Amino acid sequence: MAAQTNLSQSNPGRIHQALTSYQLAMALKGAIDLDLFTHVAAGATSVASIAALCNASEKGVRVLCDYLTVHGFLTKSGGAYGLAPDTAALLDKNSPAYMGSVAQFFTHPAMMKKYRDVAALVRNGGAIDHTLAPNDPIWVEFARYMAPMFAVPASITAPRVTIPGVPAKVLDVAAGHGLFGIHVALHNPVAEITFQDWDNVLDVACDNAVKMGITGRFNTIPGSAFEVDLGNGYDVALLPNFLHHFDSLTNVKLLEKVRAALKPGGLAAVIEFVPNEDRVSPPDGALFAMRMLGTTPSGDAYTFAEIDDMLRSAGFCQSESSSLAPAHQTLILARNK
Amino acid sequence: MAAQTNLSQSNPGRIHQALTSYQLAMALKGAIDLDLFTHVAAGATSVASIAALCNASEKGVRVLCDYLTVHGFLTKSGGAYGLAPDTAALLDKNSPAYMGSVAQFFTHPAMMKKYRDVAALVRNGGAIDHTLAPNDPIWVEFARYMAPMFAVPASITAPRVTIPGVPAKVLDVAAGHGLFGIHVALHNPVAEITFQDWDNVLDVACDNAVKMGITGRFNTIPGSAFEVDLGNGYDVALLPNFLHHFDSLTNVKLLEKVRAALKPGGLAAVIEFVPNEDRVSPPDGALFAMRMLGTTPSGDAYTFAEIDDMLRSAGFCQSESSSLAPAHQTLILARNK
Repeated sequence: MAAQTNLSQSNPGRIHQALTSYQLAMALKGAIDLDLFTHVAAGATSVASIAALCNASEKGVRVLCDYLTVHGFLTKSGGAYGLAPDTAALLDKNSPAYMGSVAQFFTHPAMMKKYRDVAALVRNGGAIDHTLAPNDPIWVEFARYMAPMFAVPASITAPRVTIPGVPAKVLDVAAGHGLFGIHVALHNPVAEITFQDWDNVLDVACDNAVKMGITGRFNTIPGSAFEVDLGNGYDVALLPNFLHHFDSLTNVKLLEKVRAALKPGGLAAVIEFVPNEDRVSPPDGALFAMRMLGTTPSGDAYTFAEIDDMLRSAGFCQSESSSLAPAHQTLILARNK
Repeated sequence: MAAQTNLSQSNPGRIHQALTSYQLAMALKGAIDLDLFTHVAAGATSVASIAALCNASEKGVRVLCDYLTVHGFLTKSGGAYGLAPDTAALLDKNSPAYMGSVAQFFTHPAMMKKYRDVAALVRNGGAIDHTLAPNDPIWVEFARYMAPMFAVPASITAPRVTIPGVPAKVLDVAAGHGLFGIHVALHNPVAEITFQDWDNVLDVACDNAVKMGITGRFNTIPGSAFEVDLGNGYDVALLPNFLHHFDSLTNVKLLEKVRAALKPGGLAAVIEFVPNEDRVSPPDGALFAMRMLGTTPSGDAYTFAEIDDMLRSAGFCQSESSSLAPAHQTLILARNK
């Protein structure tokens, strides 16, 4: 009976599913590529009607839809498929919050390749094949594809760092897509934004800034944040999703440089995925550390205490943390002395 | 306020996690590669002690352990890691049910590559780059690495198809690792097993048969099940995990051939991942269809009704289905008329 007891604990399903979970990543990307969620949102709920609109085989559509139903991205009732609420909000091209393009970055072959050998990453404590070299084209793709993911946290951040009508000189450090600076400018019609990033990435930020209507209120500083002259007299310095790429010491040096560019009393705004002190909650903050282990030599998902410590080591006042829910990011604000 | 409502439904976390879930597959494989679960089982519960035994960096071990904790494969309490029950049973090398080697097959670069473009698979209704060519070396790797996954269903199948002491001539069709035939031979000391598979795969089945002590009670038929002479006069024909590679018509032809090799009243034993009629439950049966879409031109996860229909079309009596729990597979038995 001992063997029997052992067997009953030996449910291998969860392990199989985890080890084949790349199929989930690629199936979800495949559905986005096929505009499957958009077609279902528009009323195609049968295999035949979805297949016709996706220009795909009924067999393939049936397998994909059932697979996505098991994973909760679709519903299925009496043979008719429907969208889960988050799928409807975020993966229907006709939804204003559509973010399907993020699949292009998350499942980019260059990104997936970094996880070929996680044992080696763990032995080494970080990536050897990282993406922090100047003008690495991956960041252009990041800026292009990932922008929709940051519209929500950027729009929530804006009113916490600026007051409409009060002139503000705003530095957007490693601006990427530029959304954090752009949303500040949208919220405050007299804010002026300086986007800093590598020049190939700045093209994307500038495109977005023009498209979103802040022409004439932005300028750029091309180059590495660690090397360029950031200027001075800023009221606000945005640091969105940047500190996680580096170790603490490097971040303190960068924050000292940013502080020197701020006015006295100026505000540093750090946006990060922040795990709790236990480092295993909340999921998005906690899981983010693996993304940094795979893609940076010494980056990490830092706790609030760690970020506060870096800010104070760089000469800032004590910082304050606030959630950017429903986005899974945290805003940390610290004033220059 | 409409925008606010929209935002509150736009929780992107689940979509991010799905699109990066290849990191879960590779992180779990990385932990298996590092024998991390074995070290934790042996009493290493701190980052420092695990890192020392894995010959890895503390940073890397901390990130990996936290990541696996979020996904439920480890526990964490007061900084000490522990094993979840299924991890302890299945991923500790000192457990008799250790199945860590399956990671080598599930995350094999050749397998992962098949899901590069799921939209193309869905358009086509199956794989173009499939693995069903004669002597494809992937099946040697399958037979080597996946055997631990089939010890449980094979040991449960054996007493349902043979009676100890009653002579039985048993054909193991596309035997692979050979475990289904081997377990019949272990259960019934007077059973004789004929393993059929490509000759490179038969080497693995024969190795396993010798290791597991059934020397002198087995022989082999090398070649494709569709082409070779299967012999005749069998009491039992095992068809473990084979029908899912082909379309129904091909399966009916194969089953007719198998039936011709059986004695009158002989038993066909089909082992499969079988979804319910809704095709979205249970998870293991339902998700299996995606594995076939990605790796075969026209294979599928068949429902019981579909398999019963194929068996009857091939001339078998009505079949009976039984669970192989705790394994997630189903045994379908049908008698030759």
